Amino acid sequence: MNNHNNNRKRYNDDKQSHKQPSNTQHNQTREIQAASKQNKKEIRKTPVKIIPLGGLNEIGKNMTAFECSNDIFIVDCGLAFPDSEMLGVDIVIPDFTYIERNQAKVRGVVLTHGHEDHIGGLAYLLKKVNVPVYGTKLTLGLVEGKLKEHGLSGKTKLCEVMPKKTVKMGCMAVEFISVNHSIPDSVGLAIHTPAGIIVHTGDFKVDYTPINGAPIDLARFGELGSRGVLALMADSTNAERPGYTQTEKKVGNSFDSLFNTAEGKRIIIATFSSNIHRIQQIINSAVKTNRKIAVFGRSMINVITTAIELGYLEAPKGIIIDIDLMNRYDSSQIVLITTGSQGEPMSALTRMAMNDHKKVNINCNDFIIISATPIPGNEKFVTKVVNELMKSGAEVVYEAMYEVHVSGHACQEELKLMLALTKPQFFIPVHGEYKHLKKHAQLAIEMGIPEKNVIIGEIGSVIETDGLDMRITSKVPAGRVLVDGLGVGDVGSIVLRDRKHLAQDGLIIVVIAIDRASNIVASGPDIISRGFVYVRESEELIDEAKQLLNHTLQQCSIQELREWNSLKTKLKDSLSDYIYNKTKRSPMILPIIMEI
Amino acid sequence: MNNHNNNRKRYNDDKQSHKQPSNTQHNQTREIQAASKQNKKEIRKTPVKIIPLGGLNEIGKNMTAFECSNDIFIVDCGLAFPDSEMLGVDIVIPDFTYIERNQAKVRGVVLTHGHEDHIGGLAYLLKKVNVPVYGTKLTLGLVEGKLKEHGLSGKTKLCEVMPKKTVKMGCMAVEFISVNHSIPDSVGLAIHTPAGIIVHTGDFKVDYTPINGAPIDLARFGELGSRGVLALMADSTNAERPGYTQTEKKVGNSFDSLFNTAEGKRIIIATFSSNIHRIQQIINSAVKTNRKIAVFGRSMINVITTAIELGYLEAPKGIIIDIDLMNRYDSSQIVLITTGSQGEPMSALTRMAMNDHKKVNINCNDFIIISATPIPGNEKFVTKVVNELMKSGAEVVYEAMYEVHVSGHACQEELKLMLALTKPQFFIPVHGEYKHLKKHAQLAIEMGIPEKNVIIGEIGSVIETDGLDMRITSKVPAGRVLVDGLGVGDVGSIVLRDRKHLAQDGLIIVVIAIDRASNIVASGPDIISRGFVYVRESEELIDEAKQLLNHTLQQCSIQELREWNSLKTKLKDSLSDYIYNKTKRSPMILPIIMEI
Repeated sequence: MNNHNNNRKRYNDDKQSHKQPSNTQHNQTREIQAASKQNKKEIRKTPVKIIPLGGLNEIGKNMTAFECSNDIFIVDCGLAFPDSEMLGVDIVIPDFTYIERNQAKVRGVVLTHGHEDHIGGLAYLLKKVNVPVYGTKLTLGLVEGKLKEHGLSGKTKLCEVMPKKTVKMGCMAVEFISVNHSIPDSVGLAIHTPAGIIVHTGDFKVDYTPINGAPIDLARFGELGSRGVLALMADSTNAERPGYTQTEKKVGNSFDSLFNTAEGKRIIIATFSSNIHRIQQIINSAVKTNRKIAVFGRSMINVITTAIELGYLEAPKGIIIDIDLMNRYDSSQIVLITTGSQGEPMSALTRMAMNDHKKVNINCNDFIIISATPIPGNEKFVTKVVNELMKSGAEVVYEAMYEVHVSGHACQEELKLMLALTKPQFFIPVHGEYKHLKKHAQLAIEMGIPEKNVIIGEIGSVIETDGLDMRITSKVPAGRVLVDGLGVGDVGSIVLRDRKHLAQDGLIIVVIAIDRASNIVASGPDIISRGFVYVRESEELIDEAKQLLNHTLQQCSIQELREWNSLKTKLKDSLSDYIYNKTKRSPMILPIIMEI
Repeated sequence: MNNHNNNRKRYNDDKQSHKQPSNTQHNQTREIQAASKQNKKEIRKTPVKIIPLGGLNEIGKNMTAFECSNDIFIVDCGLAFPDSEMLGVDIVIPDFTYIERNQAKVRGVVLTHGHEDHIGGLAYLLKKVNVPVYGTKLTLGLVEGKLKEHGLSGKTKLCEVMPKKTVKMGCMAVEFISVNHSIPDSVGLAIHTPAGIIVHTGDFKVDYTPINGAPIDLARFGELGSRGVLALMADSTNAERPGYTQTEKKVGNSFDSLFNTAEGKRIIIATFSSNIHRIQQIINSAVKTNRKIAVFGRSMINVITTAIELGYLEAPKGIIIDIDLMNRYDSSQIVLITTGSQGEPMSALTRMAMNDHKKVNINCNDFIIISATPIPGNEKFVTKVVNELMKSGAEVVYEAMYEVHVSGHACQEELKLMLALTKPQFFIPVHGEYKHLKKHAQLAIEMGIPEKNVIIGEIGSVIETDGLDMRITSKVPAGRVLVDGLGVGDVGSIVLRDRKHLAQDGLIIVVIAIDRASNIVASGPDIISRGFVYVRESEELIDEAKQLLNHTLQQCSIQELREWNSLKTKLKDSLSDYIYNKTKRSPMILPIIMEI
């Protein structure tokens, strides 16, 4: 009990010292810290649980719960995109079971930045557990748009937090620390808990010359490191890549020189709508070359509007024009900014490439820049778009050739820098597939963190610490929930298995009507197929199948005609053998018996 | 007429001179050449048609027809793998319509090497047009295996041709020229035609230190260039990549050092089964470290067996052991060679990764090398396998980190070398998507080939030349034929559209039995769904849908119940609106009416 109170006190001191920093207070804190370090061997503190609910062993749907005594708060609530096995699924969100079961404890959601893989699941969570949401200005601006789409506008408390500020979450507190990333207003977190400070980097990179805002607040990470960080949770996305991630400025330089090359031509640039730095640089190059800007794609328009409103984009008045006014300008005076950098089938750029866009026809007077790297799985979509644009005569610049994209995530040397600054006692690599987490763990071990202090968890792992020790102690429900249209979670493994089966070989329906009174076949068997063969050219196959079914029915006794389940199995088996022998395909076979 | 005879004579001289090279004859040839060059401006020669039927604007299914007077021969007949849109399709082959229509003219098929994208469609072609097949020893060895699978063994004439030899194809002749590639016994072709010499590189790279055999016969390409090459058709696969492709030897050096690193552990290497050079280097490293080799995966076993039989792999007696004898050795004395370098779901390596392999359990004593680059589209499969292997504790080396793979295709500097050696009058980039062809064309133009002499064709283009001029003059049928099980071409756009629809949102079947005599509904409506929602949890939705259909039926007049097509449309429309409003999904809706 005493112990607990002590911790609470220390935490309050911490918070105080950060809110109104002064030398005296810092010194006080250091003394307390030093004292606490001496006692470390003896004092086990109030345990804190770190519970990743998404983002481990996967890319996307990042979400972590922090729990201490009667308090829980959540860091991020993102979505993931379905993989190729999840047919027809729109998005994937985390399983919220644990949060729902403990909703009385939940103090809020803290967001690190406004990317879909960090905020895309939020609306679904809020529908179940309506708690305050904390984030920086731009992040909340983007969240507001999402809540509107879900009809949640005004129903949730959105609390803006500035970097360097701290918010209380029950017996814990969360301090926002500026980081660089491919969207402005990104923060890492210092989570002050009774057990000690846990640093969560969020998504980050180190950019000494960012487009707007300051470089990542390395000093604060260092200060925390000096005072003692219990655990570091850090972004592993680029843990396989040696060296440093380039500064965003580099892309601006490439744009400048490409704009010169493209003189006399219309320029079209596709990028991620959320990459406001990138868009700022396009605007800058457009200003220098006296071009007007037209914006394409719903998400691009939304983000640019929000970013300008909130002051995250500087665009001279009149430079952004309505797409309907494009015709008033010579094409050499225009830059189009568009979505579709991933070759998404319905995006503006893809429609332009396929000659399917109402307002833009691609021709040899176009100079097109794809300012992005294909996300794994999208390579072939992007290639298709590049090929089609080139066939229309356009010049296309894509990542393979020029420096028109840099990553938003830290490479190995930056990851080491973060480890060196925060000097954590325990290390938990996050945000990445197993290979990324493993590589990140190896970096930490190479830097001297004992292997036993490096924890590669999985979603649902309960990582518990009392300030001395840290280990996985139990498991809570965690997983993926598939969203298809309005349905959340109603597409599960059985539905997916059926979709896969249907996708693979199509289906054959066999319909029979049986007169219940006399037990004779009143109509059928009829055969209907879809996605199996081109029926008009396979009449013989279908006719033979019908004969086979008739034969099977004729051999059935009246008793057998009564037992529909076994009759169905019989029809299915004989048809499926026949079809497989004839075609080496296994369509889904659905026998339907109607009772008259 | 006279003209034609002259050409025939010159071609014969050419062939003669190459078959029995002597200075006198070479000089004669040069004089004839010189004379012919003087007359060039005047003499239009017997036209030759080059007709690509696959491999342009796509990766795979390479196939080209060459036609002159009454003779046609075909270079390669490959397959392509289905893209993600072609649900359930096994492989894709070229459209053979043009060849079938002209089968009386067809003199044979010439193969450049034994990769699937060059020989995988051959069996399907031979079933329609049975002509002799010409290729090098290993290529024909691999073809034989394929013909056996298709029940064509012994039915086709296979003619082995050595590099430097020439075979007659009616009024044309084809000379085989050694090239380097990722499979031994690869050749490029010099096609001697009445209109001039057309050089076709096949797939190639320049390897000055190949694993077996000699470096590419650059001298012969140069000799042809000096004498005058009418057109060059060259491999564009790597046209986007600057520099040179590394020698295969480099991979051997990596293997040696990785085998040292892996001392004490079991080594597992996954690579393409056709990469016999790579397998030779694994054997070499195994010999040096006294390891035995066990081979996994059907295609790997087949290729290694064929390659050893034909003398393309040197393996000391007893080094390759039966997989059932592995247990007799310590795991540190073993190397497994396996398929699955692309993460193919059914491959040996994938099954090992998923703990689903009968003979191999992955553990922390395994050192695994994936010696391949993911083919576009396979990235996520490979990543999944890497993650799973790592989770089992194995160390995994994959392309991103070490030099365990080199390409089999020429990069830009090698492509320029080929252009410089052959000095073609006309240039036709082949084997690649549009972006590759375009880049290759740009390289040629930069090297001084006039833009009008560079022809980017598409499949079906008839590229015609009379020795002076070369241009696309017409089009023949060309395209893709989908193979699904035993069906060749019976899966077309309608079947694929249905499969896609079913994959996306599943289906709902509505069944009604109507008594023809009285025109009353005798049974139903019943609703059956698959791949739509998890029915047990959506009873309400289905019940409401049934009520809606009942309501729709009740509102129908007797007349309306008679017109089944419009009745079906009515039921479909009302159900589909209801379902979309409730779920924002659009399953396929199939109304079935049974007549009693």
